[in-house]
Amino acid sequence: MTQETLNKLFDVIESRKGSDPSDSYVASLFARGTSKIAQKVGEEAVETCIEALQGDKKKLAEESADLLFHLMVLWADAGLKPQDITKILEGRMGVSGHAEKASRTK
Amino acid sequence: MTQETLNKLFDVIESRKGSDPSDSYVASLFARGTSKIAQKVGEEAVETCIEALQGDKKKLAEESADLLFHLMVLWADAGLKPQDITKILEGRMGVSGHAEKASRTK
Amino acid sequence: MTQETLNKLFDVIESRKGSDPSDSYVASLFARGTSKIAQKVGEEAVETCIEALQGDKKKLAEESADLLFHLMVLWADAGLKPQDITKILEGRMGVSGHAEKASRTK
Amino acid sequence: MTQETLNKLFDVIESRKGSDPSDSYVASLFARGTSKIAQKVGEEAVETCIEALQGDKKKLAEESADLLFHLMVLWADAGLKPQDITKILEGRMGVSGHAEKASRTK
Repeated sequence: MTQETLNKLFDVIESRKGSDPSDSYVASLFARGTSKIAQKVGEEAVETCIEALQGDKKKLAEESADLLFHLMVLWADAGLKPQDITKILEGRMGVSGHAEKASRTK
Repeated sequence: MTQETLNKLFDVIESRKGSDPSDSYVASLFARGTSKIAQKVGEEAVETCIEALQGDKKKLAEESADLLFHLMVLWADAGLKPQDITKILEGRMGVSGHAEKASRTK
Repeated sequence: MTQETLNKLFDVIESRKGSDPSDSYVASLFARGTSKIAQKVGEEAVETCIEALQGDKKKLAEESADLLFHLMVLWADAGLKPQDITKILEGRMGVSGHAEKASRTK
Repeated sequence: MTQETLNKLFDVIESRKGSDPSDSYVASLFARGTSKIAQKVGEEAVETCIEALQGDKKKLAEESADLLFHLMVLWADAGLKPQDITKILEGRMGVSGHAEKASRTK
């Protein structure tokens, strides 16, 4: 994962807060509010699941990008930073490096 | 976003392919197949949306971590690398650095 | 669609309001609140989509039953009656009997 | 629940199979195939969850109608009848009339 890409993308998203909604898609999402952004995350997740089941690798990558993008808008809207999420993932990988702990809330 | 965290996590996920499903949560997901992994992605997305609307920042971060984790399992299952997704996001940010292009499939 | 089944099921659901959560699954859903019931609706919808794509007719029917059941719990939780929803569907079918009008909010 | 409404709506949906997709929204859904119909069901479920959490009773009823409508299109697409689903719900209510059995697959 190219960290710089995600960090740069998050910075661009953050910089759109307060921009004119008619100039920018991200600004228009912020203006429509949390429920609209959450709806987009949910819809992109549905499309991601469907492309995974259809077995179309290219479309799965594209829908995953859409999902990740809208998820970052949701984080920015809530005042979260990507680091807040990666910190949790680090904690779950734990000293042993086992990803299994990611499942402990399941 | 700590790149190393996501890359390390993805490597751990990949290393679980072919492991004994009874030893590892990730291995058990791979063993259950694409539809089960996609189901988890969908369910975590639902929980992420709900925590966003509930306004609980801490739980939103935790559900987002769960979503990102299972999304990476879905990528590994499909033979995708995180780079395949960040490349798409880079393309959408474009030379101008505008994230708006992320919306072009909408 | 056997109307009596759905009406009877809805009456049973309504009668669980205020019951001891440890005695009844429906009462436990009401006790956990709207966000938990909405989460179940979202999760059952994900499973319904997945079974539709898997092409397993029997499982699609079962997940659809789970979805419809939890949707009715969500209606009861919100103070809606099944009639409130069928009235909307009737309005959309319209004088011409065309179901297409169901799409007018799309 | 007005049985006639749901049965009539299902009959209208079924009658659109094979119609010209440019004439009818339902026919256009059938033409686009199972994955597109499943996507609509997933998206309407997301919107239903969000309106439930927003506490807007009127919008919850409208999104529920959209969800139920697209769910019936999914059934028709799969060769299921509404009766196939209500039969399952009847079985779960059981002789005792307890809806709790609906949870037995949970």
